[in-house]
Amino acid sequence: MDMHELTRDLHQKNDSKIVLLVADGLGGLPIEQGGPTELEAAHTPHLDELARSGTSGSMIPVAPGITPGSGPGHLGLFGYDPLVYRIGRGALEATGIGIELQAGDVAARCNFCTLAADGTIADRRAGRISTEESVPLVHRLQSINIHGVSVVVEPVKEHRFVVVFRAAGLGDDVRDSDPQALGVPPLDPQPLGPVEDSASARTADAARTFIAAARTILASEKKANGLTMRGFSARPALPPYSEVYGLRAAAIAVYPMYKGLARLVGMEVVGQPATLADQIDLVERNWKAYDFFFVHFKYTDSTGEDGDFAAKVKRIEELNAMVPRIRALRPTVLAVTGDHSTPSRLRTHSWHPVPTLIAAESCRPDACTRFGERDALTGGLGHFEAKYLMPLLLAHAGRLAKFGA
Amino acid sequence: MDMHELTRDLHQKNDSKIVLLVADGLGGLPIEQGGPTELEAAHTPHLDELARSGTSGSMIPVAPGITPGSGPGHLGLFGYDPLVYRIGRGALEATGIGIELQAGDVAARCNFCTLAADGTIADRRAGRISTEESVPLVHRLQSINIHGVSVVVEPVKEHRFVVVFRAAGLGDDVRDSDPQALGVPPLDPQPLGPVEDSASARTADAARTFIAAARTILASEKKANGLTMRGFSARPALPPYSEVYGLRAAAIAVYPMYKGLARLVGMEVVGQPATLADQIDLVERNWKAYDFFFVHFKYTDSTGEDGDFAAKVKRIEELNAMVPRIRALRPTVLAVTGDHSTPSRLRTHSWHPVPTLIAAESCRPDACTRFGERDALTGGLGHFEAKYLMPLLLAHAGRLAKFGA
Repeated sequence: MDMHELTRDLHQKNDSKIVLLVADGLGGLPIEQGGPTELEAAHTPHLDELARSGTSGSMIPVAPGITPGSGPGHLGLFGYDPLVYRIGRGALEATGIGIELQAGDVAARCNFCTLAADGTIADRRAGRISTEESVPLVHRLQSINIHGVSVVVEPVKEHRFVVVFRAAGLGDDVRDSDPQALGVPPLDPQPLGPVEDSASARTADAARTFIAAARTILASEKKANGLTMRGFSARPALPPYSEVYGLRAAAIAVYPMYKGLARLVGMEVVGQPATLADQIDLVERNWKAYDFFFVHFKYTDSTGEDGDFAAKVKRIEELNAMVPRIRALRPTVLAVTGDHSTPSRLRTHSWHPVPTLIAAESCRPDACTRFGERDALTGGLGHFEAKYLMPLLLAHAGRLAKFGA
Repeated sequence: MDMHELTRDLHQKNDSKIVLLVADGLGGLPIEQGGPTELEAAHTPHLDELARSGTSGSMIPVAPGITPGSGPGHLGLFGYDPLVYRIGRGALEATGIGIELQAGDVAARCNFCTLAADGTIADRRAGRISTEESVPLVHRLQSINIHGVSVVVEPVKEHRFVVVFRAAGLGDDVRDSDPQALGVPPLDPQPLGPVEDSASARTADAARTFIAAARTILASEKKANGLTMRGFSARPALPPYSEVYGLRAAAIAVYPMYKGLARLVGMEVVGQPATLADQIDLVERNWKAYDFFFVHFKYTDSTGEDGDFAAKVKRIEELNAMVPRIRALRPTVLAVTGDHSTPSRLRTHSWHPVPTLIAAESCRPDACTRFGERDALTGGLGHFEAKYLMPLLLAHAGRLAKFGA
């Protein structure tokens, strides 16, 4: 079911304010059997108060058992079915380093690689050269000109960089040049679709030209004398928040990836915060200008990925401490959730449902007295798929009209 | 959502072992208000221990309120949406008696019937003749030859038998010859689809030839002097476990039906066990050779169908007693569930959700301390559709990669 078919028809305007506070990777696991999760171990009186007065539940990011990356995780939260709307690898990598993709751009993830004298790949990651070594090389590649196509080249990290081709009529159905093997030459970035797909043929031509020019520039390098390109992808076509929800939405995030994802769904990226306190400042200062505030907190995920239970607990407590400032603004709806779980025990994203709470005047109370994984299992939202979160927030904000008479 | 589109892309290999222990018809009902179900009445310390350390939930076999037969029940468990993948009646009957259907086979369920002198049906079940009487008749029908078509004829029980037509290019869109009424002659098994469907016309021809030859053979019988055919159906095209999950799967079952269903999804049927203890022996002996073990226990269903609450309780305890032997093998994931409920109070399959547990290191704990219907309602898996079980098992086994970056 495409919820946008409903929300597009039913949304109505009012003066309500919605705050979506996303603690990345919020869900966790106990370290030892019977013990608490990170969220359960944390001292979170303000979040617990929200759980007591609001409605809680367990949110399934994509589908049971499916572990999302940041892209699908956030699309789900934003109400875009991640199985319908896919963000290509190149587009996500470009988004993640802050490149503002435009309609028609085609982005590719690139690796520096080491080519042997016979042109075959000797090292797919150019000996994992350091960022310090690779950035000057990327800057040299920025001099490449392709007739009729603008080229954006930006470093990512170590051997990784991004290329974006910008021109009218570029397609993204192009084969990776990375053969994913050693001892063979890079592949030709051929168009993959039907012969009539001249749009992707143009992109493939641009990629070929870029690769040839880059080989000349890199010829004297010992490690990074070649490159591969993969994940050719255009900016995904996502209907904007203004259209599907009737919301003027602000995204207040520290990291480029989440700003970029929010921009893809038509949120306005507000400010350049460096800390959570900065983010709340920005919410306060922009309170009148927007209906919806997406506030992204990264460190519950990064501490989970570090496998640092105690640090994740601390970060959750840091988040908890900001809740009174948000409540002081009297939002109509305040929701707290994550885009997926990142249990510190697993040191990676996981498929486990994400504890989620909605606090609003219109909430039906449940038995939850704390914000945590076990409590959420008894909550009034039950188990629900992420794509239903936005309709629930709109409903609690009085922003969805009755369906049918 | 077709979960196979996801699992096909995301599955990854590792050394994990998954055991799926299926107690057929596991779910039950109390005999009297406030009383325990069969599972709740049973003394099941080993299953309870799994529920304590693992994650429980209520599994919906097909959809709320829908009572599945064995075919859809197991397809759902195996991860094949039973509303998408249908097994025809003939194919299921053939599977149930151990006929290994091949691609292109068309199977039909047949009844002996009693024809009056005017050729109309006087008894649709030939006076429910005994199996002893019907088996020799079926053997006589095995002598029927049809030009260009192999014919398999096998007894089922009493008046029931199966015919399989085997040849290249047979279709299964053929009308039942059983008119489901008395006093009218059997119908002609005509092809039902468009005139161009010559494949089903060939099957209809074969069926007509078979019926005519059988009438000659049976002419002197008093009760079983005729037959009807229905449920013409080909072997269903189910993508195999190796492809959709990357699993080498073993099926360890006592009854032909469950071996056959497992074979249809590409499991290898292992051994000829007669008891649950035999089945566990086979799991032990084949532990290294497979990634996934489907162990089917029939008697929780048959005691339920007998309406014998106490016997079903005993059978559940028999199952419980085998758990330590399975745990001793240290499976990465051990799941216990059923294909549907068979409450002894109803003496038949039912739509009620099936209590289900998953035990694995990566389980998030919930409040369940026992394995039972009421406890499962508080479990971390919530209410979930059967088609999500396999993705959950793969996830807990570390066999699903992240979806998107």
